[in-house]
Amino acid sequence: MARIDRPYVGIPSFLRAPICEDLSKLDAKIGVYGVPFDEGSPFYPGSRMGPRAIREHSLRFCGGLYDPATRRQFLVEERERGLIADVGDVDIAPTNVERTFDNITATVRGILDRGAMPVGLGGDHSIAYPIFRAFDRKVHILHFDAHMDYAPEANGLRYTNGHAFRHMAAMDTALSLTQVGIRSLRSDGRDHAAIEAGGNRVVAMPEARMLGAEGIAGLVPDGAPVYVSIDIDALDISLVPGCVSGEPDGFLYGELRDALKAVAERCEVVGFDLVEVNPALDVGTGATAYLAATIVLGFLGEICAQPRWKAAIAA
Amino acid sequence: MARIDRPYVGIPSFLRAPICEDLSKLDAKIGVYGVPFDEGSPFYPGSRMGPRAIREHSLRFCGGLYDPATRRQFLVEERERGLIADVGDVDIAPTNVERTFDNITATVRGILDRGAMPVGLGGDHSIAYPIFRAFDRKVHILHFDAHMDYAPEANGLRYTNGHAFRHMAAMDTALSLTQVGIRSLRSDGRDHAAIEAGGNRVVAMPEARMLGAEGIAGLVPDGAPVYVSIDIDALDISLVPGCVSGEPDGFLYGELRDALKAVAERCEVVGFDLVEVNPALDVGTGATAYLAATIVLGFLGEICAQPRWKAAIAA
Amino acid sequence: MARIDRPYVGIPSFLRAPICEDLSKLDAKIGVYGVPFDEGSPFYPGSRMGPRAIREHSLRFCGGLYDPATRRQFLVEERERGLIADVGDVDIAPTNVERTFDNITATVRGILDRGAMPVGLGGDHSIAYPIFRAFDRKVHILHFDAHMDYAPEANGLRYTNGHAFRHMAAMDTALSLTQVGIRSLRSDGRDHAAIEAGGNRVVAMPEARMLGAEGIAGLVPDGAPVYVSIDIDALDISLVPGCVSGEPDGFLYGELRDALKAVAERCEVVGFDLVEVNPALDVGTGATAYLAATIVLGFLGEICAQPRWKAAIAA
Amino acid sequence: MARIDRPYVGIPSFLRAPICEDLSKLDAKIGVYGVPFDEGSPFYPGSRMGPRAIREHSLRFCGGLYDPATRRQFLVEERERGLIADVGDVDIAPTNVERTFDNITATVRGILDRGAMPVGLGGDHSIAYPIFRAFDRKVHILHFDAHMDYAPEANGLRYTNGHAFRHMAAMDTALSLTQVGIRSLRSDGRDHAAIEAGGNRVVAMPEARMLGAEGIAGLVPDGAPVYVSIDIDALDISLVPGCVSGEPDGFLYGELRDALKAVAERCEVVGFDLVEVNPALDVGTGATAYLAATIVLGFLGEICAQPRWKAAIAA
Amino acid sequence: MARIDRPYVGIPSFLRAPICEDLSKLDAKIGVYGVPFDEGSPFYPGSRMGPRAIREHSLRFCGGLYDPATRRQFLVEERERGLIADVGDVDIAPTNVERTFDNITATVRGILDRGAMPVGLGGDHSIAYPIFRAFDRKVHILHFDAHMDYAPEANGLRYTNGHAFRHMAAMDTALSLTQVGIRSLRSDGRDHAAIEAGGNRVVAMPEARMLGAEGIAGLVPDGAPVYVSIDIDALDISLVPGCVSGEPDGFLYGELRDALKAVAERCEVVGFDLVEVNPALDVGTGATAYLAATIVLGFLGEICAQPRWKAAIAA
Amino acid sequence: MARIDRPYVGIPSFLRAPICEDLSKLDAKIGVYGVPFDEGSPFYPGSRMGPRAIREHSLRFCGGLYDPATRRQFLVEERERGLIADVGDVDIAPTNVERTFDNITATVRGILDRGAMPVGLGGDHSIAYPIFRAFDRKVHILHFDAHMDYAPEANGLRYTNGHAFRHMAAMDTALSLTQVGIRSLRSDGRDHAAIEAGGNRVVAMPEARMLGAEGIAGLVPDGAPVYVSIDIDALDISLVPGCVSGEPDGFLYGELRDALKAVAERCEVVGFDLVEVNPALDVGTGATAYLAATIVLGFLGEICAQPRWKAAIAA
Repeated sequence: MARIDRPYVGIPSFLRAPICEDLSKLDAKIGVYGVPFDEGSPFYPGSRMGPRAIREHSLRFCGGLYDPATRRQFLVEERERGLIADVGDVDIAPTNVERTFDNITATVRGILDRGAMPVGLGGDHSIAYPIFRAFDRKVHILHFDAHMDYAPEANGLRYTNGHAFRHMAAMDTALSLTQVGIRSLRSDGRDHAAIEAGGNRVVAMPEARMLGAEGIAGLVPDGAPVYVSIDIDALDISLVPGCVSGEPDGFLYGELRDALKAVAERCEVVGFDLVEVNPALDVGTGATAYLAATIVLGFLGEICAQPRWKAAIAA
Repeated sequence: MARIDRPYVGIPSFLRAPICEDLSKLDAKIGVYGVPFDEGSPFYPGSRMGPRAIREHSLRFCGGLYDPATRRQFLVEERERGLIADVGDVDIAPTNVERTFDNITATVRGILDRGAMPVGLGGDHSIAYPIFRAFDRKVHILHFDAHMDYAPEANGLRYTNGHAFRHMAAMDTALSLTQVGIRSLRSDGRDHAAIEAGGNRVVAMPEARMLGAEGIAGLVPDGAPVYVSIDIDALDISLVPGCVSGEPDGFLYGELRDALKAVAERCEVVGFDLVEVNPALDVGTGATAYLAATIVLGFLGEICAQPRWKAAIAA
Repeated sequence: MARIDRPYVGIPSFLRAPICEDLSKLDAKIGVYGVPFDEGSPFYPGSRMGPRAIREHSLRFCGGLYDPATRRQFLVEERERGLIADVGDVDIAPTNVERTFDNITATVRGILDRGAMPVGLGGDHSIAYPIFRAFDRKVHILHFDAHMDYAPEANGLRYTNGHAFRHMAAMDTALSLTQVGIRSLRSDGRDHAAIEAGGNRVVAMPEARMLGAEGIAGLVPDGAPVYVSIDIDALDISLVPGCVSGEPDGFLYGELRDALKAVAERCEVVGFDLVEVNPALDVGTGATAYLAATIVLGFLGEICAQPRWKAAIAA
Repeated sequence: MARIDRPYVGIPSFLRAPICEDLSKLDAKIGVYGVPFDEGSPFYPGSRMGPRAIREHSLRFCGGLYDPATRRQFLVEERERGLIADVGDVDIAPTNVERTFDNITATVRGILDRGAMPVGLGGDHSIAYPIFRAFDRKVHILHFDAHMDYAPEANGLRYTNGHAFRHMAAMDTALSLTQVGIRSLRSDGRDHAAIEAGGNRVVAMPEARMLGAEGIAGLVPDGAPVYVSIDIDALDISLVPGCVSGEPDGFLYGELRDALKAVAERCEVVGFDLVEVNPALDVGTGATAYLAATIVLGFLGEICAQPRWKAAIAA
Repeated sequence: MARIDRPYVGIPSFLRAPICEDLSKLDAKIGVYGVPFDEGSPFYPGSRMGPRAIREHSLRFCGGLYDPATRRQFLVEERERGLIADVGDVDIAPTNVERTFDNITATVRGILDRGAMPVGLGGDHSIAYPIFRAFDRKVHILHFDAHMDYAPEANGLRYTNGHAFRHMAAMDTALSLTQVGIRSLRSDGRDHAAIEAGGNRVVAMPEARMLGAEGIAGLVPDGAPVYVSIDIDALDISLVPGCVSGEPDGFLYGELRDALKAVAERCEVVGFDLVEVNPALDVGTGATAYLAATIVLGFLGEICAQPRWKAAIAA
Repeated sequence: MARIDRPYVGIPSFLRAPICEDLSKLDAKIGVYGVPFDEGSPFYPGSRMGPRAIREHSLRFCGGLYDPATRRQFLVEERERGLIADVGDVDIAPTNVERTFDNITATVRGILDRGAMPVGLGGDHSIAYPIFRAFDRKVHILHFDAHMDYAPEANGLRYTNGHAFRHMAAMDTALSLTQVGIRSLRSDGRDHAAIEAGGNRVVAMPEARMLGAEGIAGLVPDGAPVYVSIDIDALDISLVPGCVSGEPDGFLYGELRDALKAVAERCEVVGFDLVEVNPALDVGTGATAYLAATIVLGFLGEICAQPRWKAAIAA
């Protein structure tokens, strides 16, 4: 008789996907990995527990993903054919950020080397830089966040969660950087100017709302490869009680979902991450981790619904 | 000198209504009952503590219900004449769901037999089925929820909070089933199809929003009797941090309030329930339980403001 | 080498402003003071811890206030010139409310006497009355709240957080009282009538939304002096999980921000307070305290951006 | 069929005793009353929620009290004959401590007038004074606490939870005051001296431990009437995570239980209270409230097991 | 380079043991399984999350188990040779307790069939019955608990966590039942009598303490096979803030540890379980789950240090 | 009129001591400093918030320190003469541990240079190493802890909270290292051996208990200078719910207090620290932070009660 496997039952891999911790044996098209790192956090720490919480909440979707509004079903083939693997967590070397970052890059590269798309679960946003380092092709960067995370190296700091996108934007592999949803009053105008001076783009929240989903996706050239990095605080603070950096006046869920859908449709998503869920500080129901799982799965669902993906996995 | 009775003072019956645990002596027009049952919950349990929390927060309204926007006062006569009674909680038989369900049906039938309208406080949504069994007249079912709760019997499961509405829709007393606010990605397309095959209706959230309050109420024939079952997760996840099954993109409070008002005006509400508040996991201020009390009292207020109610209690 | 001073580092004064607990030595234009008083709270207490929490979250803004949407920088001169001082907390005499209220009035008067604008951090809303008593010039009162806080003296109660605005409206120094955002169903129609009978104004939430920011600010005569009292529950309940009196259907953050901006632009703000943050019951990330800090700093930023302010500090 | 009545079921009166809020109709030998007052608390408030939490946990004992070690059953006759009544909560007048204290005294006097023994559930320890005022016969006071609560009137304070025992000791009805378990380093030597100067006694924790149960009970003359006031912080801090004033090196549960048993055996207990449980700050399992219920019920059980009690209720 | 694998890193199997969810392929001497079932809980639910929490805290021991006091190292060979496997969780059928119980029995039987010792992680204590049913050899039962869990079938209840040991004691395979640490005042004298009438033994806490470790172990015949069932509430309530049924005056950790060690030395332990950890209600540091992991690992360590075990695994 | 200054009032410096953040101006005999660093934590982070929490709870002692058992008063002269200063927090450079450690050393050296005794509030235990580096005289190290914190450099790790005492023991300034209370099963026998090979001493908990207070103090030569480092987890896990590394079978409070008193009496304490309080995970009442404040103040009180101290401050 079939197992019922309620979400509170069992050892939680992402979406109960097979666990493959030895990357040399990875045989999947999607490699989900956790980065339980929060040493780059500027205030309360704890997002290191994010990957476990998101995995736990992902189990709630094991019965299938179906949107009652559009009557569409998602990730069916991917799950039936075992195309999704959970490769476990990047090893963390506490107080040794460079080694940790090397580990992150190695894991992502390992997934890429096996021909799979890396899907990262944070962790704080400092991890976006070592993740992005693993890509050796030129891609655009689309960054959903309330904050620019573009601090200059100063006072001995270069690897916090406020620095990642300055490093990324400066890399040869970065065709462009587009930051969407920026709105925190805890910002620095000099960073804003520096981003634009570098030829990149900050789309503050009011403009993002005006652009709408299609407009946001249109910020990246049609069909171009794009890496997407999602800070859960792109969403409004009322939706992310368990994110330390939540800000008001943010994306509603539907707005972010639609923007990601448009990106999936118009661009070639080469990988993505979702960061900054802090389970110990979340509400008891784990709403923030649940929403994170929803977004990861929803975006993954849209990516895998595209002809380019279908073609790729048919190969 | 009058008691001040701050909400933190006193043994909490619903709205400080008289307690009448012996249904044979019930002499009221509204019978509020609790169903502290959560064995049907698919993930974190705890909604068994819901009735107590909603009762506690209901005390905050004892000074009176008045809407500053419309300058309307609610439930004045009902409270002055003692037409509301708290009949306590249904007895629960843990691990013996059939007996618990029988107890639920018996309590609701007991309230109906005394000519009162039953108002149920959950507990998880599995209780809607045994509640509905207590009605012996034909009524429409209006169901506000993020989920269809229409799972088929399978793998030995038939009484969880995902099964209730399949049982209800199949009963002779169910004139129709209309589900409003459905939107969870954790849905199953086969359930959706089964509901429609049964002649019933799923109104996914985008459609619900388009219909508006009047449109939603119009889904039930004018003046027809209707039983209303409200999962607190019909509201947006940002409003219900203490509901395990919260989903984004849900009803705003005003939308749900207006829809319930329209239902009260156009239909004959024969009873209702509100379920899935989980106090132990709620935020410290009890926001979810407070909102639940607000909705229950607001809906009750609108029901009791209708000419048909005024006529009934005049009798 | 400069200190990094992450927000979790250091003894938290407001915005790391200099601490000046001896008011006779105050030499600043803005005096921030805490009122850790919650004995007037009608349900769960705990807002006495509000000032500490708001101070802690204010530290997160020490890197500067900059709005990425408008490219405006705030409070630069005020911080560089040391125009903001944290004068510490009013001394509280538990169970002796009259003495506590005298202390509150004395502190605010002390700040005013030094020519500084008082900015109060609550505590519950009962403190607005003793704060307002400290002003000896005639000003308008603009009150953002979900509740009227206009209870009559009765049953031996006169100093709870439900009484403040009746006392204030009755004072000679009150040119008018305008209450904006009122919406709680836990209201009393007699209070509503009494406010209007007194020539004052209740702007219920739907009307407030219709008026918009400019319309709200226009409720006070152009250029007139105004004292602003902000209950954090003016914001929607989804935004203030750590406020015991949260109510649905409230101001979105942007709506409140814009209204305060319009007030700063059109009126002469003589002081303001923000109350009802309850840190012990807040979510773990302190979202409510953070939002409180955001509103206080944002409003302060707009006040200090006005020509009348620039002129005053140039003096 | 009998109800199962699990502790999470039903409206919680103490031990599911009949509720009798009209004291003029009280017909019982034990009157349990709550005093949800915490305005006298010197640090975090919240013990106002204590009575509800203790009532809720008392329900867990409804199946009967039986000590497996001694094979003794407790409170059987009292429950069968309905000798225990829950008289509800004293009405609280926030910010008007004198009126609240009058209400407390009136409630206790009302219970005494009906010939019942008052059993009080706090609330903070300031309530011991107005409780004790209700007695018009001369009795000894036995006080279990980590703190002396003997502050002098000063700085406008006289009614906080640090003042109660100075007022009580000064009353004509106080034959003596004996304080047991005193140990907090947050003590004042002048209070200590004042207690002894008044002919009363402080038994610091090391001495209490040396005396043992019989020695402690022996501090009151054999057979003499005694009022017992128990601060839950008499217990070690490890046992009372939900008590703000917990102190290390306190009574183990067995030590306190045995001392109370010895007191019940040797003295005529005329009433008692248990205070300072703070449910909102307690651990999630409510361990402190549960322990409070255990102590109240255990002490009550021993009192009712004495010949003098049996004789009294036979009358 | 070796992985560091901090405890917050990686998908948590017990002690990072290999996961073997297909029992037919189990090749280990110890099979750790979870039973995330709490429908038998009489008060707050939530122990269904126990297995995950204990697994998470078990990771903290991956660096090795070594007792600085005795200089002994534990489980070295077992871990090096891969003799410990995590077989995942028993499948739970909510509201269908009989099916769940069958699943439990099947899992344990599956482990036994593969020649491994079953080590169960609860869940509530109702699971001890279906676990024990899986054994087909005659063994003694040693039960550490604050409660007898020996309720009679009545009122439709037979499978709650208060019933397990009555069923177990009645089975042919039960050579004897010895209950140690019993002390709750929420006990029933009739259960006590029934246990003794059945030839079994209740060792209340004072007697247990008098017996000491060796005395407790001596309650089972030397060398005899014994199944050990440990309710975490055998420990004192101060040690188990996350156990709903905690009781004061319980085992200190050292007392329980030594008793289990003595049992391991004198008897043939055929399996054991540890139950009633409730993570959602535990303190934030997870102290109760950590202690549970400590006890499971410590007991396992002692079992595996015995000559009989060494002989068995040499085979 | 004097301020009452309840502990919830005011900006919290340690014991309301004057704040002196510019060390060059320090004019005190005791310099209390915070080290809000937790990047060295092996599991849940959060002890960075420790200094603030300990400061807050220290305010509860501002009324004076007096021990009712011994009738001794503490720290009177020190407070009256302003000999205690709060120098604020060491600046932290997240992800740059070497810089942070340099800052720690500089702060402690700054305090020492001004002739004051440094008293450190952690933070995690990794900070003991950079603290100790600041001393340039030879002293003994007395270390109270459940863990040896003596990990070898390996896998790129050298600065975690498990490494500090290996570095310290290796320094020329370390006359000896004595570790008391060691008991965690999460220990490594090789570290144990290495400590002893280095001529140092591990006093496991059973031995510590046997030695008693005087025996423990006697492990350091009479009158010798000693630096004391206290991990709050030296105390039993039941006392430190807010310490992630709590272990059972630890020091009772009285045992630790007496040992520290004996050390103060017999040795020349040159400084001390207390670490590993994690406020966000603590119980709501902050029991762990309170106990930490109690220990710091009690130890300080004993140190300042010694003739050598009295002589020093007379100078």
